[in-house]
Amino acid sequence: MTRPAVHSVEVLRRGEAGPVRDHVAVELPLEVRLNGHPFAVVMRTPGADRDLVLGFLFTERVLRSPADVHRIDLDEDAGIANVVFVRGRDEQVADVLDRRRQVTMNASCGMCGRDSLASLRVDAPRCALNWVVSGAVIASLPDTLRASQSAFAQTGGLHAAGVFDLGGRLEAVAEDVGRHNAVDKLLGRMLDAGSTPLADSLLVVSGRSSFEIVQKAWLGGIPFVAAVSAPSSLAIDLARTAGMTLLGFVRDGRFNIYAHAGRVT
Amino acid sequence: MTRPAVHSVEVLRRGEAGPVRDHVAVELPLEVRLNGHPFAVVMRTPGADRDLVLGFLFTERVLRSPADVHRIDLDEDAGIANVVFVRGRDEQVADVLDRRRQVTMNASCGMCGRDSLASLRVDAPRCALNWVVSGAVIASLPDTLRASQSAFAQTGGLHAAGVFDLGGRLEAVAEDVGRHNAVDKLLGRMLDAGSTPLADSLLVVSGRSSFEIVQKAWLGGIPFVAAVSAPSSLAIDLARTAGMTLLGFVRDGRFNIYAHAGRVT
Repeated sequence: MTRPAVHSVEVLRRGEAGPVRDHVAVELPLEVRLNGHPFAVVMRTPGADRDLVLGFLFTERVLRSPADVHRIDLDEDAGIANVVFVRGRDEQVADVLDRRRQVTMNASCGMCGRDSLASLRVDAPRCALNWVVSGAVIASLPDTLRASQSAFAQTGGLHAAGVFDLGGRLEAVAEDVGRHNAVDKLLGRMLDAGSTPLADSLLVVSGRSSFEIVQKAWLGGIPFVAAVSAPSSLAIDLARTAGMTLLGFVRDGRFNIYAHAGRVT
Repeated sequence: MTRPAVHSVEVLRRGEAGPVRDHVAVELPLEVRLNGHPFAVVMRTPGADRDLVLGFLFTERVLRSPADVHRIDLDEDAGIANVVFVRGRDEQVADVLDRRRQVTMNASCGMCGRDSLASLRVDAPRCALNWVVSGAVIASLPDTLRASQSAFAQTGGLHAAGVFDLGGRLEAVAEDVGRHNAVDKLLGRMLDAGSTPLADSLLVVSGRSSFEIVQKAWLGGIPFVAAVSAPSSLAIDLARTAGMTLLGFVRDGRFNIYAHAGRVT
């Protein structure tokens, strides 16, 4: 049984007499267990849990490729929450859990399970600049992304992330109450399909771009991030360091370029 | 030296010839050390770090009152990141670090440092229903919050949270790239001022309301949360359980009531 991404609730509206039914985005905790050990709790919108777990473990650098995971089992009977059991290579998982144990007291907020400061740095290679994309294609991306969201997603409670080709065609889309989760779901699906690194792809996110969004894109090998809303200072810094193109306020036919304008004609 | 909340960057705009200067919200990691031990890394907007740390430690249930913290020292010379050294009562901190050690492998995402699933539950008392607020006051809240944001905040990259009295007067406001941080900063400041629990207050957030936002409000004793955008399903469930009033889409003179309408006239 797949849990729904949208839930129907009773709502009172100012100026209307009785209660009406409305839809809200589902948020539920997902506990990730790695070879039997509790590993993380992720607040997420159900519906693409396998993708989410794969992408999450990848961007948390627990695994390098889908081959590192033997199996993923979803437990749908765990009460209010789902539990996902991930079985990885024994020696690799032991290594990960060991590192995790060492960073216990660094249990992090916003930077899940990472070693305090040094671990904010990624050793991914700098992105090569070997293609360009037109301003017209870029301007079309948010509308294409929005059109791909289901009617349910228009509740206003779900973030979307999409992977596009250089012609502006949508290759994959994911939605979640969490911005980071939407990107993890995308990366998980692409990883599963064997299509990473996504060196010839554009990542589009419906909200803002933070350090973590840019870092996840970099780990997936995507050299181009376009956000409908604003970037943070650290997102810009990281994009400049990584050789990535970073765009913000991509809306109404306009956009700002914050890093590596060389990929935009 | 206080680090600025806004940073000036060079931007290229579609349709404009040369680069222009624009402002973006600053995002920087803050490492929190507790009695010498690395404890957490929080991605935040600088400017109210003491408030943030107090509120964060409170909503993470590391401390119960400001008296539990002997001193907070900010290190402004730690390179790209700030480090904050918190000195708490030895026996209490030892207890916290011990629990933290036990939940190592539960290092969590979105639910910082919490024990996997059981810990999502809070033992705060159910909110009493002993006052009402008018629809007209509620409708005025977002405009008041927006007017209180500095011009810099209008970069579109900062979330805001405000505490209001029952007449709709703004008592405190905080801004951050992270929605949760803005609420933590508010709670930290109110905690420091000795004004918690905020039983006669309204919390207004500029974005959506998630489980965590409602949980933080509950821990601060605030029985009323109004969000400019959508709630998640779990935010509604928690508000109903906690006896809290939850409003969403508070904009343009309208709003939806998702839980405990009894406080709204």
